[in-house]
Amino acid sequence: MRTETDSLGSLDVPDDAYYGIHTMRALDNFSITGEHAHPALIKAILAIKLAAAKTNKAAGDLSAQVADPIIEAIETLLDQPLNYDMFPLDPIQGGAGTSMNMNVNEVVANLALELQGRNRGDYHVIHPNDHVNHSQSTNDVFPSAGKLALIQNSQPLLGELQSLITALGQKADEFATIYKMGRTQLQDAVPMTLGNSFHAYLKPLRRDMERIEEAVAALHVLNLGGSAIGSGINVSYYYQSHIIPELSQLTGLQLTQASDLFDATQNLDSFLALSAALKSLAVNLSKIANDLRLLSSGPRSGLNEINLPAKQAGSSIMPGKVNPVIPEVVNQVAYEVIGNDATVTATVEAGQLELNAFEPVMLYRLFASLDHLTAAMATLRKNAIQGISPNRDQLHRDIDLSASFATAMANSIGYQAAAKLAKQALKTGRPLRDLAVESGQFSQAELEHIFAVAEIVENERTPEHGLVLKRSGYTS
Amino acid sequence: MRTETDSLGSLDVPDDAYYGIHTMRALDNFSITGEHAHPALIKAILAIKLAAAKTNKAAGDLSAQVADPIIEAIETLLDQPLNYDMFPLDPIQGGAGTSMNMNVNEVVANLALELQGRNRGDYHVIHPNDHVNHSQSTNDVFPSAGKLALIQNSQPLLGELQSLITALGQKADEFATIYKMGRTQLQDAVPMTLGNSFHAYLKPLRRDMERIEEAVAALHVLNLGGSAIGSGINVSYYYQSHIIPELSQLTGLQLTQASDLFDATQNLDSFLALSAALKSLAVNLSKIANDLRLLSSGPRSGLNEINLPAKQAGSSIMPGKVNPVIPEVVNQVAYEVIGNDATVTATVEAGQLELNAFEPVMLYRLFASLDHLTAAMATLRKNAIQGISPNRDQLHRDIDLSASFATAMANSIGYQAAAKLAKQALKTGRPLRDLAVESGQFSQAELEHIFAVAEIVENERTPEHGLVLKRSGYTS
Amino acid sequence: MRTETDSLGSLDVPDDAYYGIHTMRALDNFSITGEHAHPALIKAILAIKLAAAKTNKAAGDLSAQVADPIIEAIETLLDQPLNYDMFPLDPIQGGAGTSMNMNVNEVVANLALELQGRNRGDYHVIHPNDHVNHSQSTNDVFPSAGKLALIQNSQPLLGELQSLITALGQKADEFATIYKMGRTQLQDAVPMTLGNSFHAYLKPLRRDMERIEEAVAALHVLNLGGSAIGSGINVSYYYQSHIIPELSQLTGLQLTQASDLFDATQNLDSFLALSAALKSLAVNLSKIANDLRLLSSGPRSGLNEINLPAKQAGSSIMPGKVNPVIPEVVNQVAYEVIGNDATVTATVEAGQLELNAFEPVMLYRLFASLDHLTAAMATLRKNAIQGISPNRDQLHRDIDLSASFATAMANSIGYQAAAKLAKQALKTGRPLRDLAVESGQFSQAELEHIFAVAEIVENERTPEHGLVLKRSGYTS
Amino acid sequence: MRTETDSLGSLDVPDDAYYGIHTMRALDNFSITGEHAHPALIKAILAIKLAAAKTNKAAGDLSAQVADPIIEAIETLLDQPLNYDMFPLDPIQGGAGTSMNMNVNEVVANLALELQGRNRGDYHVIHPNDHVNHSQSTNDVFPSAGKLALIQNSQPLLGELQSLITALGQKADEFATIYKMGRTQLQDAVPMTLGNSFHAYLKPLRRDMERIEEAVAALHVLNLGGSAIGSGINVSYYYQSHIIPELSQLTGLQLTQASDLFDATQNLDSFLALSAALKSLAVNLSKIANDLRLLSSGPRSGLNEINLPAKQAGSSIMPGKVNPVIPEVVNQVAYEVIGNDATVTATVEAGQLELNAFEPVMLYRLFASLDHLTAAMATLRKNAIQGISPNRDQLHRDIDLSASFATAMANSIGYQAAAKLAKQALKTGRPLRDLAVESGQFSQAELEHIFAVAEIVENERTPEHGLVLKRSGYTS
Repeated sequence: MRTETDSLGSLDVPDDAYYGIHTMRALDNFSITGEHAHPALIKAILAIKLAAAKTNKAAGDLSAQVADPIIEAIETLLDQPLNYDMFPLDPIQGGAGTSMNMNVNEVVANLALELQGRNRGDYHVIHPNDHVNHSQSTNDVFPSAGKLALIQNSQPLLGELQSLITALGQKADEFATIYKMGRTQLQDAVPMTLGNSFHAYLKPLRRDMERIEEAVAALHVLNLGGSAIGSGINVSYYYQSHIIPELSQLTGLQLTQASDLFDATQNLDSFLALSAALKSLAVNLSKIANDLRLLSSGPRSGLNEINLPAKQAGSSIMPGKVNPVIPEVVNQVAYEVIGNDATVTATVEAGQLELNAFEPVMLYRLFASLDHLTAAMATLRKNAIQGISPNRDQLHRDIDLSASFATAMANSIGYQAAAKLAKQALKTGRPLRDLAVESGQFSQAELEHIFAVAEIVENERTPEHGLVLKRSGYTS
Repeated sequence: MRTETDSLGSLDVPDDAYYGIHTMRALDNFSITGEHAHPALIKAILAIKLAAAKTNKAAGDLSAQVADPIIEAIETLLDQPLNYDMFPLDPIQGGAGTSMNMNVNEVVANLALELQGRNRGDYHVIHPNDHVNHSQSTNDVFPSAGKLALIQNSQPLLGELQSLITALGQKADEFATIYKMGRTQLQDAVPMTLGNSFHAYLKPLRRDMERIEEAVAALHVLNLGGSAIGSGINVSYYYQSHIIPELSQLTGLQLTQASDLFDATQNLDSFLALSAALKSLAVNLSKIANDLRLLSSGPRSGLNEINLPAKQAGSSIMPGKVNPVIPEVVNQVAYEVIGNDATVTATVEAGQLELNAFEPVMLYRLFASLDHLTAAMATLRKNAIQGISPNRDQLHRDIDLSASFATAMANSIGYQAAAKLAKQALKTGRPLRDLAVESGQFSQAELEHIFAVAEIVENERTPEHGLVLKRSGYTS
Repeated sequence: MRTETDSLGSLDVPDDAYYGIHTMRALDNFSITGEHAHPALIKAILAIKLAAAKTNKAAGDLSAQVADPIIEAIETLLDQPLNYDMFPLDPIQGGAGTSMNMNVNEVVANLALELQGRNRGDYHVIHPNDHVNHSQSTNDVFPSAGKLALIQNSQPLLGELQSLITALGQKADEFATIYKMGRTQLQDAVPMTLGNSFHAYLKPLRRDMERIEEAVAALHVLNLGGSAIGSGINVSYYYQSHIIPELSQLTGLQLTQASDLFDATQNLDSFLALSAALKSLAVNLSKIANDLRLLSSGPRSGLNEINLPAKQAGSSIMPGKVNPVIPEVVNQVAYEVIGNDATVTATVEAGQLELNAFEPVMLYRLFASLDHLTAAMATLRKNAIQGISPNRDQLHRDIDLSASFATAMANSIGYQAAAKLAKQALKTGRPLRDLAVESGQFSQAELEHIFAVAEIVENERTPEHGLVLKRSGYTS
Repeated sequence: MRTETDSLGSLDVPDDAYYGIHTMRALDNFSITGEHAHPALIKAILAIKLAAAKTNKAAGDLSAQVADPIIEAIETLLDQPLNYDMFPLDPIQGGAGTSMNMNVNEVVANLALELQGRNRGDYHVIHPNDHVNHSQSTNDVFPSAGKLALIQNSQPLLGELQSLITALGQKADEFATIYKMGRTQLQDAVPMTLGNSFHAYLKPLRRDMERIEEAVAALHVLNLGGSAIGSGINVSYYYQSHIIPELSQLTGLQLTQASDLFDATQNLDSFLALSAALKSLAVNLSKIANDLRLLSSGPRSGLNEINLPAKQAGSSIMPGKVNPVIPEVVNQVAYEVIGNDATVTATVEAGQLELNAFEPVMLYRLFASLDHLTAAMATLRKNAIQGISPNRDQLHRDIDLSASFATAMANSIGYQAAAKLAKQALKTGRPLRDLAVESGQFSQAELEHIFAVAEIVENERTPEHGLVLKRSGYTS
């Protein structure tokens, strides 16, 4: 055991601990979830510390004797997988991230001391606050690290989103000429193609991609250099003007400094915007999952229009049952993300004056949204979308038996008369076409036109035909 | 125009206005929704003012010359339909309800003056604060009035809820012997009766009724007598101990006084509990509405197991289309109530120290939840539930074609072997029974037992049969 | 009474009603809120009908005899204030807006008939479906009208938002040299200016403006021409390619047609994006309102750093009390908007297959969010922000007594030693400067530097001074 | 490697794995959170399996040769800490819990085989479905296990809640005679005691305890015996009537069987009720945390009425700063719980027909709410509440300087005149008492009465004094 001291008193710290007294206190105060901070967040704090140490050294604010071991220590930590024995803190913690920042300061200081052949705790040589944290405040380090980590973790999400869009597009092409009944309000409406369905699934995801990219772009604006509350207190001119370029180079990101550092310190609306974009993705994925479950319902007493790949024996008691487990897991992640957005909203609203003290839980849930959506999209694509096949017999039967051609009739004989025939067909169970012929209201040519599914559905319409131009209802 | 003065200065008030300067200012400050306060809320404030005036008179805190015209004025107002020219304020307003309370104080004072043959504004005779508001504070009047109004408006809700439960029970009885396929995860599971379905709909509503009744019961605890912050300042012993009995007698409700008036003034969790109970009702209704829309989907390309009464021509363009518009409106109210609960939650959390200043918006949305749910249940019952009929042909077909009897087979031949037969049936489209016979794995008696839908479904099981006792899966 | 007939049967309609049988049924089925559809929504439906009639006429799809009276009728209706006797329907209704669309179809048809000197109900001449609704479906008319109405109602919101930003900017300038204590986590941190505070308030609102503008821009993409489910059934080539330009000209908006009409019919994520942007505005406004209430708390037992204009006598019982009623009403609207976003989220997620049937409640709450935020910002600006004044004495006292200069000391003597002095100051109640002098740890020059509030706060830092360049913490 | 086979095909399973093919597939399909199922949930499934095996044996449905090793295997597992190598599945998974149920079935079967000296995978002897899962379905096992686990984990929560209430009560007593300013809307109102404050904190928590207990009580109703969809298919009469008593004895809980097993299988409103009760607790805790942060704000530029124990050096840059980190972590947990309730709400609403497939995510977030609230209350009590001390000087100063005695004056001279004096006091900064004396409006006796803080605050009011009876504003 070694003894460490802070302004609140002294505490014994285990000899083998790289962390120090601040982390010790936090372990006791914030034992909430049993989980650890997101590794990307700690790595991002380390990256900021690295850029800070280099900038402080270049500014002459830290001597090489102090800065170099700090730099070496951080580089060592960044090169390794994260060691949670060093960074044991809970993702939910009081203090606006101070404990997580101090945890990193302490570990870096002690590792730097060790690299110098000194004892852990010899902070008069390398001090967690005075040296590792030099020119910084949790007020600027923590939200900036949160942004870096979210930017980084958004990349796999955007990659999976693009892969999912591509997979849906392939299905849209594959199913471009497979006719099916379109439904509104779960009631038979008019024919379309199965390709139309899948194209309509990918379009909102493309918009989500744009929205997420835009939200992520806004996270590139950091408040580093603002130190406490954005005031820039204890920050040199050199540091303030060089920390962002240094960090940009280090991370390969196009980072910029906020034009109002007070604003960038106290307002978290750019995080809320990311949460909103993720919620939109969740909602759109949930709608797709709902549709897939509906369309594959059955096999006998459901719509049974498509087959999802069988991925799990569906029931512990009902033999042969196969369930839409992959869309179901997507729904569940969507519901979680909707809840996370409520948490983020409450958090962002709760900021007071010059700081929002509740950043930790906000980041905790945002990481959950990002990572879980990424995983959900991966399994949706691989284990569901790519293996979907149509039930052609069922799809044909649905159209043949439907009264939906009454809509096409209305142009000839009016809404009211067409409604009468449709009602009659449904009541008697007879095909609408037979009733139409018997009614004597249509010429043979009209009948051909009205019941030309291909014509309605494929929309091979040209100006000459007096019909719409678009194929399959979409142009891109 | 007459001129009125308060501590902020003077203002001209229209001669014909019963309200005064406080209301004038509030009209200017809080022009948010274009709507009016809920009439039940204003009537409840009036009822409290009436009880207060009577109690103040009995206590000797107000002379008969002052109290009697106040009492007469309030009784006049309570006997009439609410006149929004008198009570023009917005339901969302700053000040924790002070403006609404003062609006009532002013109208009562001026009407009392008028009844005395005096001029409006002669407040030295009868004063809105000193006399009408005597022994009261907005801090106790407003939340207490909110509770009274919610208690009152919960009665039609509970009545409609009971009627809906009764209607569902009638359908459960009516459909007690109509077999249908049960589904899990939208996939065919095992047979049941349509009566089971409707009984399973009414049960959560019974629990909702209990939860709502309990939440409403908790609203009977009022903080009257607490005046400012619950301190009881400026309230006589007589008033404090007689105001609740007086109000109980006046309203016919069993009201009690909070044992901690500070608590009852600052904490709004009993309103949140009502909102939660209403959200549960909304969620359960939405689940029922979703099921009804699913089961009535079609008519050709859907489950088509039940028919909802046709209530609207479904489409402006598709003749003969009929949509499940009644369940749809129920879903929409449910989504609104879910949102209202989010508002109520944010509001209740936002209380600070001795008061929650945000009561007006909380009540505004709670009234919306209550009233809209009441209306939604009424139309659901009258325009949907009561007219539902089964499609017997479809229901029979679903069971006959299903592979769900494999579950009953598993007891004889094991899960794995039963799954194999089920898969074969689905693949070949052949009836499971034929395959079972051909397999030679079952005796004739076993076959009779396995495919005895009635036996599975009706659950006329007795100890002698070694089967479950319950009929149709429920005992009450 | 006249008798009207639809596919469900016949009904008596009052002679003086411009609406017809569909509206009659809807009045009975959907009596939920007691409110009316938003006027902007009905006007937007009318505008679409006008563009459609003109396009149908130009296409030769409607004869001039039919089209001209329809056009005249619509123009008449658009020129008048909305008459709710004509458009009596509830904003929450089943059927994805069919009833609202049909209500307009019926009123236009009957008014057109009347203009022709014919009787209401003579639909064989001008028919609500066959003529007024020609080339349209509720599927494309209703969401498109929702978008138009939201675009329109976003204009006053954006105007008020800009005015609020301007007012905050004026205060930021006015208060640019008034020093105050900055706080983190409600604890004294380091000095700043009151101008910094107000500038930090306007910045997130500028981002909100961009986000809202972007969300509104996305609403300019309509699915008109898609008719049922986006299929374009019963729509001529001419109509499909001319309806959007026609409507653009009519409205003066740069509207475009969705490239995938199925997508644009079934997916409502662009509405969700607007709701999210409005929620962000609500959250940022709520944070500002919270701060204003905190900073103006007191007058004796609070922070008391700023004065809000007195707008209402604050209490019905506590004389002389003035409350922050304007920020309070802003908070309440914010909580409502947070709830509305929950409703919109649930609604958008609930879409199934080719349509989202729940658009009415989504629009209902989105209009509430838009309109109430507009009103809240107006009163916030006029009745609060513009009249705010600082309490200079209190602001000075806060800084003078604070131990916050310890932060500036740390650069000279290290974090630990500075913390010790700060603790001593707080414990003894003695000024930090005196203790600093007595400690002998600082030269006179260092002391001047450390306690130079102006230097810290105004940030007149230049490269020469080795300090940051930015003035008052922000550059724009 | 051993090869296992299910109805979807064959798969290699590692030799040392106790789980089998179903779990293998689930690992691949549901890799979402990187977390494990809650240990209490798996233990609860095991407990149900144990009761089932015993009941099946007693019923003669399973032979002793099969039942005994199953029983031994489960007892072995229940006696050990949970081994996640055996139970590796993600808490979010498709399939309504089937994978988690099958994981347990497989582990129990293989362990039972091993105890018999047989090889893993020899399922013809002891089969996961036919034997371990006998008389059960995931439909009844999984929600029942969820209820058992929540009941169990609610116990530490209720214990911590009681401890917190006790600690608050001790503070209420300790501070019973310490006067302080009461505030409404953050503005000075009238005096009270600090004891009043703490008593007002514990009261809503007592209500929360009742609400949570009631919600937990409702979870004691299980659907065991219902097997698939509540139908009771493949369940013997003996099992159905004995499984609940057996499980009650095993767990020591008073469990009952649902009277409608279909209802109890498909409707999850009893889980929603628990979530709502937990949200109420979260909201009430958040309000307390907000108040504590407000009251301890400062130390110089805040209210500074109470001191929280110093638990962390507050800032990485600002020496000597101590922040309210414990209340802050409570706020964050509250925001998380609010979000979790949104997830639970979406989940419960999403049930369809005879099952809600989304139980896993619902349980996942409910466990988070329960466990995190428990931890938050523990740290709040130990690290904040118990160490709170009052700042007597500040508290006295606040009252002495306040104009709040104007309220007590109003009874003598009326609201308007009192308001005038209050305004004058605030404007001039002179004590209200001096102005009152100078005004000549009060007798000496009246002055004594008006400024008798003790009288106002302590409320030692008796009928003789014409004052309220209650001491410190509360009776219990």
